Amino acid sequence: MREVFHQSLEDVQGRLVEIAELVTVAIDKATRAFGTSDVSLAEEVIEADAVIDEKAVALDELAIEILARQQPVARDLRIVVSALRMSASLERMGDIAEHIAQLTRMRFPERAIPKGLKSTFLKMGELDVEVSRQLAELLRTQDLAVAESIRNADDRLDELHLSVFEKVLSDSWQGEASATVDATLASRYHERFADHAVSVAKKVAYLSTGEWTATTDAIDVVSPA
Amino acid sequence: MREVFHQSLEDVQGRLVEIAELVTVAIDKATRAFGTSDVSLAEEVIEADAVIDEKAVALDELAIEILARQQPVARDLRIVVSALRMSASLERMGDIAEHIAQLTRMRFPERAIPKGLKSTFLKMGELDVEVSRQLAELLRTQDLAVAESIRNADDRLDELHLSVFEKVLSDSWQGEASATVDATLASRYHERFADHAVSVAKKVAYLSTGEWTATTDAIDVVSPA
Repeated sequence: MREVFHQSLEDVQGRLVEIAELVTVAIDKATRAFGTSDVSLAEEVIEADAVIDEKAVALDELAIEILARQQPVARDLRIVVSALRMSASLERMGDIAEHIAQLTRMRFPERAIPKGLKSTFLKMGELDVEVSRQLAELLRTQDLAVAESIRNADDRLDELHLSVFEKVLSDSWQGEASATVDATLASRYHERFADHAVSVAKKVAYLSTGEWTATTDAIDVVSPA
Repeated sequence: MREVFHQSLEDVQGRLVEIAELVTVAIDKATRAFGTSDVSLAEEVIEADAVIDEKAVALDELAIEILARQQPVARDLRIVVSALRMSASLERMGDIAEHIAQLTRMRFPERAIPKGLKSTFLKMGELDVEVSRQLAELLRTQDLAVAESIRNADDRLDELHLSVFEKVLSDSWQGEASATVDATLASRYHERFADHAVSVAKKVAYLSTGEWTATTDAIDVVSPA
């Protein structure tokens, strides 16, 4: 029974890695599409989100089946419950990549990336892609140094998020209302993406250390300054 | 054992209702604070969110304990897994009420509610409060007519959300960048609040009908027009 459970967990882990890799492809394409107004790349992201959703649902079903058949208790049980939550966070990360792609499509043929914020959003996009890649690696290796690196990137993204609001609310901002809307939404999406990654990383840390932190995912503390 | 499980479920249900009632208080105060720039009311919401978070964590722990001790299978297992997800959604609704309160505090003594959008946001606030009240009722009574009513209110909120973007992007919009930022964020918060309520309502529908819908909470389809 123990061995069966171990094999099931490996299956769960493999699927989490697979979803994280799909999310990485999505955020990579979405941020590139956003930066270059590439509407066909944006369409690819929007279409591919259904695959991420399906895989998250399939993982949830597997987790429920493991609970039903193998009746894990104690730490094993918490691992399976964590997998359900990680699946939900990864699915949301896919949704956010889709939202960034939708912004791109909505403004086409105009640029969705507001003038004066190009380098900021390029940086945010790079950080999100890096965070997503690292998350897949963390899920694969359970190397907690990677979790630390994800948290650092999230801190950088929070700073950039605040800098977008500073820019938009400064006297020098010449953007029209549509640029202000785009900057607000895009910045929030980029920042939230990494929040979800941090939330997953915390759960992986539990899987490795056995230290269960009974906290909510109340991670959404960055407001416009 | 069956009776013990039944009692545990009643406990779970009671806690879900309790959290939904706290969320209703939070969104009621948050939207009133937002409408009237009442910063002390906003502070109340921000402080009280920790209570919602704690109660959600306690409910999660109870659900995990039920899984460990009572090892439910089949439909019973899915009910407990649903409770974990409902708890996460309610907790997010509390966070969103807090975000609306934070917007209010951030702009004080200025009004956070942008000029020309007062009646729209009053309506959105009323709908969110109504949705939250109905959700508590639905969790208490499992009356699926209430679930339908929540979906209808969510549709109205989606329309209002789009109308905010139409307004902000129209030639008549005279708002400064800060008003555009506030309108964008506040509208998104109001709309997302009801999305989460719909997500919970769907799960209650499962508890009542036994029809498990293996879908994600991919409910975030409304983009600015």
